[in-house]
Parts: sequence; structure tokens; C-alpha cells
Amino acid sequence: MIDARERVTGRIPYTIDVTLPGMLHARLLRSTEAHARLVRVDVSRARAVPGVVAIITAADLVGRPDLFPYMGPVYRDQPILAIDRVRYVGEPIAAVAAVDLDAAQAALDLIEVEYEPLAAVFDAVEALEPGAPVLHAGSPRTGPTYADIILHPGEGTNVCNHFMLRKGDVDAAFAGADHVFEDEFTCPPAQAMPMETHCCVADAGAGGITIWSATQTPFAVRAAIGEILPGYQGRIRVVVSTLGGGYGAKAYPKIEPVTVLLSLAARRPVRLHLTRAEEFITITKHGVRIRMKTGLRSDGTIVARKSTCWFNTGAYAEIGPRLIKNGGIGTGGPHHIPNVWVDSYAVYTNLPPAGAYRGYGINQAAWAYETQMDMIADRLGMDPLDLRLRNLLEDGQDSMVGTPAHDLHFRELLTGVAERIGWGTPASTAQPKPSSPGRKARGVGFSVIIKGTITPSTSTAGARLDEDGSLQVLTSSVEMGQGVRTLLARIAGARLGLGLDRISVTTPDTLTTPYDQVTGSSRSSHMMGTAVERAVDAIAAQVLALAAARLEIAPGDLELADGAVRVKGSPQRSVPFATLLAGARIGSLQGAGEYRTEGTLDPQTGQGISSIHWHQAAGAAEVEVDLDTGRVELLRYEAAVYAGRAINPVQCELQAEGNVAFGVGQALFEELVFDRGQLQNGSLADYMVAYPADMPGRLGVTTLENPALGEVHGIGETGLPPVAPAIGNAIARATGVRILDLPITPEKILRALRAPG
Amino acid sequence: MIDARERVTGRIPYTIDVTLPGMLHARLLRSTEAHARLVRVDVSRARAVPGVVAIITAADLVGRPDLFPYMGPVYRDQPILAIDRVRYVGEPIAAVAAVDLDAAQAALDLIEVEYEPLAAVFDAVEALEPGAPVLHAGSPRTGPTYADIILHPGEGTNVCNHFMLRKGDVDAAFAGADHVFEDEFTCPPAQAMPMETHCCVADAGAGGITIWSATQTPFAVRAAIGEILPGYQGRIRVVVSTLGGGYGAKAYPKIEPVTVLLSLAARRPVRLHLTRAEEFITITKHGVRIRMKTGLRSDGTIVARKSTCWFNTGAYAEIGPRLIKNGGIGTGGPHHIPNVWVDSYAVYTNLPPAGAYRGYGINQAAWAYETQMDMIADRLGMDPLDLRLRNLLEDGQDSMVGTPAHDLHFRELLTGVAERIGWGTPASTAQPKPSSPGRKARGVGFSVIIKGTITPSTSTAGARLDEDGSLQVLTSSVEMGQGVRTLLARIAGARLGLGLDRISVTTPDTLTTPYDQVTGSSRSSHMMGTAVERAVDAIAAQVLALAAARLEIAPGDLELADGAVRVKGSPQRSVPFATLLAGARIGSLQGAGEYRTEGTLDPQTGQGISSIHWHQAAGAAEVEVDLDTGRVELLRYEAAVYAGRAINPVQCELQAEGNVAFGVGQALFEELVFDRGQLQNGSLADYMVAYPADMPGRLGVTTLENPALGEVHGIGETGLPPVAPAIGNAIARATGVRILDLPITPEKILRALRAPG
Repeated sequence: MIDARERVTGRIPYTIDVTLPGMLHARLLRSTEAHARLVRVDVSRARAVPGVVAIITAADLVGRPDLFPYMGPVYRDQPILAIDRVRYVGEPIAAVAAVDLDAAQAALDLIEVEYEPLAAVFDAVEALEPGAPVLHAGSPRTGPTYADIILHPGEGTNVCNHFMLRKGDVDAAFAGADHVFEDEFTCPPAQAMPMETHCCVADAGAGGITIWSATQTPFAVRAAIGEILPGYQGRIRVVVSTLGGGYGAKAYPKIEPVTVLLSLAARRPVRLHLTRAEEFITITKHGVRIRMKTGLRSDGTIVARKSTCWFNTGAYAEIGPRLIKNGGIGTGGPHHIPNVWVDSYAVYTNLPPAGAYRGYGINQAAWAYETQMDMIADRLGMDPLDLRLRNLLEDGQDSMVGTPAHDLHFRELLTGVAERIGWGTPASTAQPKPSSPGRKARGVGFSVIIKGTITPSTSTAGARLDEDGSLQVLTSSVEMGQGVRTLLARIAGARLGLGLDRISVTTPDTLTTPYDQVTGSSRSSHMMGTAVERAVDAIAAQVLALAAARLEIAPGDLELADGAVRVKGSPQRSVPFATLLAGARIGSLQGAGEYRTEGTLDPQTGQGISSIHWHQAAGAAEVEVDLDTGRVELLRYEAAVYAGRAINPVQCELQAEGNVAFGVGQALFEELVFDRGQLQNGSLADYMVAYPADMPGRLGVTTLENPALGEVHGIGETGLPPVAPAIGNAIARATGVRILDLPITPEKILRALRAPG
Repeated sequence: MIDARERVTGRIPYTIDVTLPGMLHARLLRSTEAHARLVRVDVSRARAVPGVVAIITAADLVGRPDLFPYMGPVYRDQPILAIDRVRYVGEPIAAVAAVDLDAAQAALDLIEVEYEPLAAVFDAVEALEPGAPVLHAGSPRTGPTYADIILHPGEGTNVCNHFMLRKGDVDAAFAGADHVFEDEFTCPPAQAMPMETHCCVADAGAGGITIWSATQTPFAVRAAIGEILPGYQGRIRVVVSTLGGGYGAKAYPKIEPVTVLLSLAARRPVRLHLTRAEEFITITKHGVRIRMKTGLRSDGTIVARKSTCWFNTGAYAEIGPRLIKNGGIGTGGPHHIPNVWVDSYAVYTNLPPAGAYRGYGINQAAWAYETQMDMIADRLGMDPLDLRLRNLLEDGQDSMVGTPAHDLHFRELLTGVAERIGWGTPASTAQPKPSSPGRKARGVGFSVIIKGTITPSTSTAGARLDEDGSLQVLTSSVEMGQGVRTLLARIAGARLGLGLDRISVTTPDTLTTPYDQVTGSSRSSHMMGTAVERAVDAIAAQVLALAAARLEIAPGDLELADGAVRVKGSPQRSVPFATLLAGARIGSLQGAGEYRTEGTLDPQTGQGISSIHWHQAAGAAEVEVDLDTGRVELLRYEAAVYAGRAINPVQCELQAEGNVAFGVGQALFEELVFDRGQLQNGSLADYMVAYPADMPGRLGVTTLENPALGEVHGIGETGLPPVAPAIGNAIARATGVRILDLPITPEKILRALRAPG
């Protein structure tokens, strides 16, 4: 890691470390109602609090030709501060900037808000029933930003988006199937829980706007601010430090717009740093209900699947319209299914907005299909491994979106983890029985998943080789603990024959680092890695040309190694880069690289190209369940992921560990609990996340590569979706009971065990 | 100005605004002796002061294989902290980093230093006399960095460098001349007096070194730190904010090395911000003695000149060896002189180091030759304007360095100011006489100068056109109030047809902005301007190609204007850049530009190419001298400078004003007064700088352009050298007395007026 020493010594600067002269501190007044008309918002008493410099509400933002008061990465449906109406508990109504947080809080306490409650709806299925309160009837919806988002909004309903996939003839296929199974699965809303909560410092003035933000999308934030304040377009700068975790929660504008508007009002820099309680309700993982109907021939071959997904996207669209497309496609799993029908809905409810979250809809989809696969195997009396192997997508077969899939390794991944976990040994497949004193039962389970990466997609990079022989890699990839700076340094170093100690990699700054679309979707290693390769190759060509002229040897007879150009076969004849540049009096050599991928789906059928390649993973779990308490202990977990080419094997293992930590929580205890829209467990005392003792007693990680192809695949998320179904399948095999609603808490297990047989 | 609003609202971030978590504050213990052996430096009591985190002395720096404890842009002769010996009053001996300045100062007070005084020398001529104490006998001298610096050091003497110019046969020419005049002129040491004193924050750790410094040379600082700490090469980053003035005083490493070493020792970030008193002794303008012998034919044609310059470069070489070359060449003035002999010495003395200062040796040279020109005219009974016009260098004639000079405008510049000041009217040429009640005398004078710009020279730039239609100009030019960011924005905007409100220009950051040699030598507008043009042109070509494909029109039929590509002759057919990029799904287009100039001088004759083109200026002053008090009032000043192409006419005028303010001070009152090496007036209470009332009652500024050629000339310094001789010539014409030693104080005038005739 190029930042390992800074990291372990606590010297990495984060956004919370940004301090500007005269900087104010901001707090937000948030709605206490889930759905209400705002009758009155009175800030007059609050303005009198000493130390308060600015207070803004919707009244300051609406009706201004210079200001568009909405935001959102797809629809612009989310008011920066609530306009006339609040739609979830926690929605910002007013913002205060003061000399310190105490003054800001004192002002909040004096703001008077009068609500007129409205009927609210919290469940995504109920929200689509006739007579349900409609959250956004007649609301403005501009956008979309992304050409690849398929929008079928239901006007006058709570349907935010409806993604349709239509492949083959499912009705005919079900009619001709030997077996048809229909089951329903749910996942609860959850929290990404980055160590660092959202933080933004904005310095907005007549000369322009500078934003320091812990965001995964500096350019999207810049574009959003430019849309909100069109007069500032071209004078907006977004600077991003290393993030203390992101996991999707920090993609697209969140708190930046309100911070900027506060800074403009205060004419001073303003910092807004969310409390943990605020973080809980700022962006969530989508809760979902998935109804899945699968038809098979008697030999276990899947002939058709029909899925209906109700993704609860909360009060505002956020990236939901896009995520539910991914989740909907994902319900097909890594199988070859000739007939598929998917309806995937993003549904508005009076909960906090749901958005991007590590796995991006695939966790939810995989929970459904990989649980159902085991259930089907049991029902058919088949080995669940055999059932999967019979259906796994083969190289060249059509994927869910109808285009051929290549470079597939599902079989190897799955059989590998199954073998390592001991599948096929008597113990593993045995029916539940007390396996140890105190009525404890053991079982193993596995799963295999497919995931796309954002397509179309664009990354650009710059590179600069300097007179001192050092290489600067200019990239807007966001370092958020995933090690992207190290990864890009390794890629660059390998192309140029230069050690990591001579390579710097930037953090993003829209002023100085070139465009990147997003750090997310496990895309950086593939997309930005390729852009960096191209930028560095442009420099390598210049270096070789310089050396060729100096040494009077053809460039083809030269090679790059150890920070020098040397003659092939005569390594003693070499010129260090620094010497080469100094000799030619060159201060720096510059290179630029770009990488773009293309793809599009037919909006009526969801067929086309949704991902340039497929991320692939499998997982296998061994659990021991205490049949008296319902407590689950994860004895062992085997993770396997396809990386194409592993740039940094250690980092690959760490990503696998992180994915398991996330997956354990999702499988066993993570859940945001709402009571009529009020979050009941919005603190780290009440909301459970995995801690070291929750990790598997034994963790095996396999990073599969394909040296022949050599293409890099991102693996930041791929290992996560298998975890919950593998654990769920292991629990079912240990206990004989199936829990279809995550998380699989001890209570649910006990209730199922005690249910009349 | 693209930063005008930030500037007037006080929102520009300076280096002093950099605050890092855990940052310590540094103070330096400085020598009280001008020349002494360091017998003992004991920091043991100081270490016990609460709040002190690190103290370093030479003992911590010498004898380490990982550390080279010297610095200097030409020779590495300056110890970062005094090693065994101090050579000037104020030389740093120890450095303390503490939690606050009070603790640091308390520690300084407890450091015990025992000196053994050595004989000292302060005058540059005396320093070359036999028996003078030699400052650097046997000292290490590595370097030089610059191939174009001609080094003739006098080993075992105080000659730091000796520049020789040998052109024609001066002895024969003097022998054949009708008149030969020899005079001696002096200029005192002075202070550049930037509003912002030197400031540096360093964060050095195992992972690398980041330096925030108010420097004009980020890359030279990076290189210097890499030389001092070779193990860190490739992991050193220098970030430069807007400077509160530079004027040469902030070029090359100054306080950065000691700050970095303190940070390494403390393992925490450290800030060192010099007090005004420290600023006075950190770097100075060279004091000089110039003996000038000029031979003429009876018609006033100059046939030969021999100059000897003793530049007092203080205790360490700094950039002196280079500056005295410029000053030496400069003694030839803007005249065609076939036979020239110059000996220009940089001489070590026990004064603070002298270095770069606005005008870079030309102020001193011009003071000599433009004063002597008037003296010669008087002696020959010629009109001083006629004498100059007879000798001015004409296009195609050889310059001082023997190569033809082109694009010359001396005649126009000089006759312009002479005419505007009223030269030739009876009053102006009259002998001194009381012109008003109270015995006040008026007179006018003028001068004309030539100045080179650093050659060879390299600048690189980057540019990026983004999806939002904004252009980012990536440059390491340092904004120090001269308006370089605005200038580069205007250059870029003109090439791309884009308004300034869509253009950002970086401040330097060696991580993200490409190499530049130095912001100095009035080179940025020409050098970096050209590099930026090239970078932007590379983008323009891509934009035109995109538009050509989209509009199906040949690129040659398209033009760039108002942030759009439009069809020539059909301006209504246009595509905004943002639309063009969005249509092609391009995040950003990148361009790179480089500009290098070449030149070299023969080390034995000083003949060759010393400047790619010549900076040219003239000035004329009208003064009123109170013959009772000696007080001089500058009634009027006419400045004229050749700009080639004026990018920002308002900025050109402001540069002229700044030059006049500097020139008035040099002419009339600025002088560092030393008593045996102790500075006597090292405060703004005692050292005089020009304030508004010292400015001319009427200031005329002419910025001459040459539309036919269109080449941009820097004008940041050019207007300064004419000021002092023009004022001196006006005073002489008003009073009849000649002062050859700057500044022309009332005391000197009165003494001369009262001297026996």
C-alpha cells in the first residue's frame, strides 16, 4: 500500500481535517414527521441566537431564477430543504451555520415548525395498492442523467421506476415445465456504516465554489451543484480526500448542496459533518420483497423464471431507478434460463431514501435465487451442487440480457468452495441432528453469483514523469480504503518499470485531476486501471524515443525496468529516467489516457448490453446452530472470486474479508427497524454490525485468475452477495428450517424450529 | 482578474492559512556573530521546556549517509543549520518545533552557544584584498544545477564566481577613442519586502514529504529536498498557494529544508513563518560597486566599455553566481558597443546572502550606465537624448553577447518618454535654478534599459476541457500578485473561444501540475503562455474533430467562439462544448503543452545566446528638489515598456506602477544599513519603502506593442531599472550635483550642494 504508513500512523488527511479561516459549522433541522404538509417554518427566533450567521429554509431557495432547489442523480425529485412537505422522518427542513456547533444547535432548538400530518406508507407493496398515499404526484422530475437508466415511472402512483426484462416466452415455458416453484423472499433496509460519516466543507463566494467532500463522485457532485446554481457553472471545484469508507453511501450529491447554499448565504466557508444518527437516515440499503417463480424440467434444468421485485426506495428516487435495474437483471443469477420475465419496481415510501450499497441490488437478488435453488434441490431430492452445475451459464451462452457471456468461471468457483467446505462428505449433507452436547447442529451451504459493472462507463487519467524520475498518476478515483491508489500505482509501475516508491497517485480534485464517472460498481481497477495504462504507455513511448535517440538504438531493442531504459540483452547499458530527462532538459513528460465502454438495453425488454463483463463469485459456509438459543456460529467460510488478473493479491484478500464482514451482518443481524417511519435502532448501540468475533472461525479466500486473458475484474463487491445465501443454506441444512426473510435472527430460527411441523 | 473577488474579499488562501492536525510551530536560533567558530551549541536545557517536541542542530545533520546538510541553487555551500562556523549575523544555528511559538521561543532562550569570533569582512572590494578573511576555504561545493551558469570561482579567495565578457579589443579601442571616461557607482543592499514573509509548512514522515511553501520555485524546492534527503526522492510534494509577493526573494529553497528536517525529527507537521525581522536577513538584494570606463568618438559614438562589478553576495552563493552574469552583461546597456570587457564578481562577505531581486542585476547595471550616459553628455556638451539615440542598438546589430538582437524598440520607447516628460522645452534642459519660492529646483531626466530573460528555459502546461464546458488550465506558474493566473486564463480563453468565467487556473502542486522552471525573470507570460497555448490548441483540435464528425463539416470550416464550435459564416449553426462532449459521452479532453528555449554562452568570452529576446523599457522623471532640505519630490514619471503583445493591458499598467514604487525607493531611500555585519534598520519602522505619497504626482504608462510580431514579452521587471537613473538624472539636472551612490538621500544632496565647487 502506498499509503500504508500514513494510514497506520493516523496521518491521512480526511475531509473532517479541512479547516478554513472563518469557517462556520452547520446543523440541520430535520422533520419529526414521516409525511406532513409544512404549514409554517419560523426561523425568526433562531436568527437572534448569538453566533448564528445564516439560516436557510426552502423559502430562501424557491422562486429564484438563479437557483434550482432540487437534487437527485436520476430524477431531480429531492428538495435540498423540504419544500411545502416532508416525506420522511429526518428530512432536512432548515440549515443553520454558526460559529460553533453549540450555537447552531441552540438555533435549531428555536426554529418553530408546524406540521399538518398526511397519511403515510412505509411498505413498498402497500405503497402500490389503490388508495395508498402518493408521495410525488405532480412533483417535478427532471433528468435522467444516464442514458442507460430505463425509466418507466408510474405517473400518479408511487412507482418511481419499473424495469422490465422480457426474454423468451415464460408462460409457455411454465406451462411445459415439469415443476414450478414460487417463493417470496425479503431483505430489510440496512446501513452501509462507513467509519467516517458524511462530511462536506464548502467555500462559496462570488468568485466560485470550492467543495471539500467525502464523496465517491466528485464530478457528479460538481455537475449537481452546477445544475442547482447554473450561474456558477465552470467555477465549481470539488476536492476529495481519502474517504473513511464509502460502500456506495457516498455516491452522488448528498449534503454538498445544502452546505454550498449555507456558505453562499453566510458568505463564509461552512462545514457540515453528519452525526452518526443523521448518517443512519441519510441513505440506506434498499429493503426489498422478491417473488420468484422458477420452472424446471424433471432433470433439474431451469426453463423459466419470473421475478417481481419491490425495492423500497424511500421518499426520493436517489439512484434507486438504476439500482433496481441491476437487481432485476440479477434475479436471473448465473444460470442459463431461456425464458425470463422480470418486473422490478423502485417504490416510493415514507422512509429515508435508499441508494447505492455495496452489491448494488445483487445482494437482494442473490438472497432470493440462491436460497430458492437450495429449496428446489431439496424439493426435487437433488444435490444442490448438481442442480447448480446443471444450470450454470457456459461460455458463449446468452446472459439474462440476451447477449453472449464470456470468460465465465462459475463452475470452477463453485466446485472449489464446495470442495473446500467439505461438500459431499457425510456430515455436510446429513439431515440436522445434534452434533455436539447442548443440542448444536452443524451444516454447510454454498452459493454462486453474477454481477454486472456499470456500463457504459468512462474513465480518464493523466500521468507525468518528472525530472527527478518520479511518476505522478493523475486520477479522480476515490481512495476509500479499498486501496485504489496502490492498485493504480502498481499498474503504472508495471507498465513503466518503476518502483512504487517513485510513484504518486492523486486523490481527486476536479480542478487538477481528469474526469472519472464514479468510484463504485467495482469498476476502478478495470476502467481506471486501463485509462492509467494508456496514460503511462504514452509516457513510455516518449521515454523510449528519447533513449533511442540518446543511445542510437531502435526503440524496439530497448526495455523499461528499475526506473531506467536499458538495452535488451545488455542490462548494463541503461539510462535512468532522471538522467534521460535531464540530458534533454525536459522538466516533465505528460501522458493522457481514456477508456470508455459502451452498452445499452432495450427499454421494453431489458435485452442488450448491461455490463461489459461479468463479476463472478461463490461462497460456502459451515455453521453451527445452537438449537436451544437459535444462535448461529459461523465456523468457516470459503470465498472465491474471479479477478481476471489480480493486481494486488493481498488487497484482494482484504476485500474478501470485508465482503464477508458485510455479508455476515446481512445474513444474521443487520436491519434498520422502523416504526411508522421512525427509526428505532439508529445508533451503534442498537444497530448491529459485524465485529471480529462474528467473523468466521476459519476464512479461506481464493482469488481466481485467467492469465490467458489478463483482463482485470473489480472484486470490491463480488464476494458479498454469496455470503447471506451460503449462510442461510448452511443453517437450513443444519436445522431443517428455512428462513426466507433476512436477517436470520435466533428468534426466527427458534420460532421456525418450534413451529408445528 | 480571475481572482479579483477572492482577493478583495480576503478569501485567497495563503500558505500561512495552512493548518494541519497536530501541527507544531518552529523558531530558529540565529547567530549573533558575523563570523565565528561554533565552540559549543548546547540544547539540553532547551529540550526540557514543556511543549517542545524537537530541537535540531548541525549535530543532528552531519555525518549521516541519508542526509546532505547543505543547500543552494548553484553551489551547495549553505548549511541548513550552521556547521562548525557562522558566517553572518542571523545565520540559523538551531531549530525548535513546539506546540506553540511561546514554547519554541522559551526553548531558544535556553540554548547555549559559545562562539570563537573570527575576523570578518563586509565589503566586496575589501574581501578580495590580500589577507582578507576567506569565508569558504575548503568548503564543499557541489553543483551547479544550471548548465548556463558560468563558474570561475576563485579557490582560496572570496570569489564565489567571476563572469567574463570579452568582445572585440577594448584596449585598442580606448587607445583610439577621442574621449574616455571612468566613473564608479554603487548600489546598497536592499530588501524585496514582500507583504507575506517566508512561510513553510512541512509534513514529513516515513510515507513521504509534503511541503506547503510560499515559493516561486516549487520544482526547484522539490529537487533540493530530494538532494538533502535522497531516500525520499520521488515521494516529495510541494504545494504552493498564492503568494503575498515574491520579487525574487522566494525563489529557490530558503526555509523549506529546515522545516522538513524539523518535521522529520518531530514526526509531526511543522510550520515555520518568518518574522519581519528574520525576513530582512534571509535574502537581500545585492549591494554592488561598479567601475565603468567608456570610450567615445568625438561625435558621441561609443567605441568601448570596460566594466568591473563587485557584487556583494553575502555569506553564501545563493543565486549570486548567476545574477552577476546578468548584471555583468547588463552593463553594456541597450547600446551597440563593438568592444566590451566585463569582469563581474560575486564576492563572499559576512553579510546575509544576497539573491534574486526584481530586475536581477539590471537595476545595478542600469544605475551605472544610464547615470554615466548623462554625465558623458554633460562632459561632451551633448544633448543626453541625442547621445543615447546615436548609440542605441538597432535591429540586427550584435547585442552585448555577440549575437544579433531583433524586435528592438528602444528608440520609440525613449523618445516617447522624453517627449512626454517635456524634454527639449527650455525648463527641462535649464541649468539648476530656483524655480519656486523657498529655493526649489526642478529638472527632468530619462533612461533606457535592456534586460534578458532566463535562457535556456522550460515550461510545460496541461489543459482539460470538461463535460460541463469548463476549461482547467494546469500550470505550475506561481501567482504572486502579478496576475499570472488571469493572464494564462486569457491566453487559454482566446485560443479556445471561451469566457474567463469558465476557465480555472491552478496554483502549483508538484503532484498534479506539470513542471515549470521558475516563476521569475518575467518569463511566465512568454514561456508558460506559450506552453498553455500549445496545451489548449491540442484540445481545440480534438473539439474541432468532434464537431466536424457531428456536424459533418470539415474542421477547417469551423471556428471556436463563446464556448461553442460554430460553422464559419453561419454562426447560428453552433454546438456548445458541453453538448459536444456529452453527445460523445466524453468526460474530459486532455491536452499537454511544452515550450523550451535554448541558449548558451562561451565561458571564456561570455558570447553566445543569453536571452531568447530582449526586454526593453524607458523612463522619464520630473523632480522638484528642495535646495534647503535636499528633499526630492517626484512630480511626474513616464514609464514605457515593450510588451510585444499585451495580454492584459490593465495588468501591464499595474506592473508599471509596482515597478515605479520599487524604483522610487531604490532611487531615494531604500538601503540596508549594516554596522560590522549587524543590520541597523531591520524593521519597517526603520527601513524605508515607498508609500503612496512617495509615488509620482502624475504617472504615465505606455505599453508598447508590436502587432506584426505578436510575441509576448514579460514586463514584471522591465520597468524597474530605468526608474533610479531617470530620477538621478532629473535631480542632477535640477541641482547640478551628481550622486553616484544610491540612494540619493537629502543628506547626500545637501552635502554635494554645499561641497566646495
